[in-house]
Amino acid sequence: MDEATSVDVTQKEQPPPDTSKAWGGIDLGGTKIEAVVIDGAGTVLGRTRHPTPGEGSVDEVVMAMYGAIEEAAHAAGLTPQQLAGVGVGAPGAVDANAGTLAHVSNVGRGWSEPYPVAANLGELTGGRVALGNDVQVAVAAEYRLGAGRPYRSVLGVWWGTGVGGGLVLDGVPWRGRGAAGEIGHVVVKPGGARCGCGRRGCMEAYAGRASMERKARKAVGQGEKTILFELMEKKGRPRLTSSIWDKALREEDPLATWLIDRAVRMLGAGLASAINLLDVEAIVLGGGLGTRLGSRYAERIHEAMRPHIFVPGRQPPVLMAELGDQAGAIGAALLAAPPAK
Amino acid sequence: MDEATSVDVTQKEQPPPDTSKAWGGIDLGGTKIEAVVIDGAGTVLGRTRHPTPGEGSVDEVVMAMYGAIEEAAHAAGLTPQQLAGVGVGAPGAVDANAGTLAHVSNVGRGWSEPYPVAANLGELTGGRVALGNDVQVAVAAEYRLGAGRPYRSVLGVWWGTGVGGGLVLDGVPWRGRGAAGEIGHVVVKPGGARCGCGRRGCMEAYAGRASMERKARKAVGQGEKTILFELMEKKGRPRLTSSIWDKALREEDPLATWLIDRAVRMLGAGLASAINLLDVEAIVLGGGLGTRLGSRYAERIHEAMRPHIFVPGRQPPVLMAELGDQAGAIGAALLAAPPAK
Repeated sequence: MDEATSVDVTQKEQPPPDTSKAWGGIDLGGTKIEAVVIDGAGTVLGRTRHPTPGEGSVDEVVMAMYGAIEEAAHAAGLTPQQLAGVGVGAPGAVDANAGTLAHVSNVGRGWSEPYPVAANLGELTGGRVALGNDVQVAVAAEYRLGAGRPYRSVLGVWWGTGVGGGLVLDGVPWRGRGAAGEIGHVVVKPGGARCGCGRRGCMEAYAGRASMERKARKAVGQGEKTILFELMEKKGRPRLTSSIWDKALREEDPLATWLIDRAVRMLGAGLASAINLLDVEAIVLGGGLGTRLGSRYAERIHEAMRPHIFVPGRQPPVLMAELGDQAGAIGAALLAAPPAK
Repeated sequence: MDEATSVDVTQKEQPPPDTSKAWGGIDLGGTKIEAVVIDGAGTVLGRTRHPTPGEGSVDEVVMAMYGAIEEAAHAAGLTPQQLAGVGVGAPGAVDANAGTLAHVSNVGRGWSEPYPVAANLGELTGGRVALGNDVQVAVAAEYRLGAGRPYRSVLGVWWGTGVGGGLVLDGVPWRGRGAAGEIGHVVVKPGGARCGCGRRGCMEAYAGRASMERKARKAVGQGEKTILFELMEKKGRPRLTSSIWDKALREEDPLATWLIDRAVRMLGAGLASAINLLDVEAIVLGGGLGTRLGSRYAERIHEAMRPHIFVPGRQPPVLMAELGDQAGAIGAALLAAPPAK
């Protein structure tokens, strides 16, 4: 929670950017709400970050989203009502056509029934609001403006609490019937470890930060030694954050090293499977853990894929995401903006 | 080999079909060369089947392909030169742009360097020749004219000697950079069984007929009992064909049952992974073994996928391919014909 302090960055440019057409984007997360305003070239004209209302109702969450986009718009010298459109990237079950969001468990106090986020937020902003999956829009942003720029087809892998994913195929985000991109639930070991989704043997059951934390707690319960939980207490965190994993790895903690090695191995198998099936040009690695561990681990994942790649000469690169924390909000804004790559 | 006898079927229709625009398709296999001539609606106007020249050079193979398309054209009341275009579906490394075929191991005496099949066959037919991967074109045919007709996005799984695949996404065959669709080389068990491709743990290493035969021979060497090889000798075959597997299953041979059960389990894991990633509308099951074992096994594979499907309500059907032996040749003809779905 403590990283969700409010940030307000006004971008200053010479000559002043063209704000006659600007779009707003909101990345709705469990901890924070990121908002940006971009122009037609994807340049960020204003941004802000708010903490997500901890135990807020869905109405309070929508109000907080409006507050964030208002601040980002002001930072760009605009009002929300002057934006040509607003997009929202969200977790849970997104129905883009209906503009509803359901089955949200870790935002505010959560809600299960479909809630008309697009209509209710649109009443406040006075315009159209587009909804998309948080990871899918972040991947689309990396495709258009980040690490995926040189390519037409990319697989984005968001390595964090879970392992999310998104696909862009020949320039078009591929959503299947709405649920595509779940690379974290590619099966790497039938009958294997229990996943947060309730199934067994998913890649996320080995590589997701939440799964690794469960496994680490179990190991400690069985008498294994690790500095992971000491670091957690020292930092006053309730969970093993990405920076804690990073530090434990740097200090060569055996349990952390074993768990991350296993995660890398399973990411290698799962991502190679995706490449054998789809033969895309590049993989973009993002997410909290991916971003924190950085390019050395992107390279390790690339190496872990190698034994499983069917056409070895054509193994695509694993690139670090470039847009950082703003990828989701920028991608959300692109949901509302016209295509431009 | 003995199933590759020459067949010549002239389709008779009232009123006579419109042959003013007709396309030829050739399915180049290790055992046989299938050829068809279709009209713009995909109706087969003529077909033939030739044995592939056993130890023939690549030139002899091209001559045999020409012989086959000539016969299919005659069956449709045409000459090859009257065809608006000819397509070829082939194994090995297809370069569709260059019109070349390389790394072919089981056709004639094989060849490794890129050979200009399109140019050389085109000189004989007097027109354009399009080249494609044999499984991909068969899947495209099922999409356009077979089991995939009601859908816009399908995954085709060709379960035979190996496990091939092909994708159609939103109406367009997805080939990636040329090598997409290798569903048989999705990793279902890292470090697992050795695959024919040299890697470990691929789905094909458990489900491919060649892999299962290797495993069966090894089991017999270790003293296990099975009727598989008795059936093979009785039928005078050098290999365990699909019909032998089928018969052994019907007689509840324990080794055959164990191997096929394992194959179904691994197909379930691998196909569920593909669905979690791509969320296509349907899976079409073809190939020698898939076709022979039929809809009961399509249903079993569907059940084996169930524990791994991330959005359970959206599990797509597993449908039996409908075009049988002709899928490859019809799909090859569609390579040359204009899109029509």
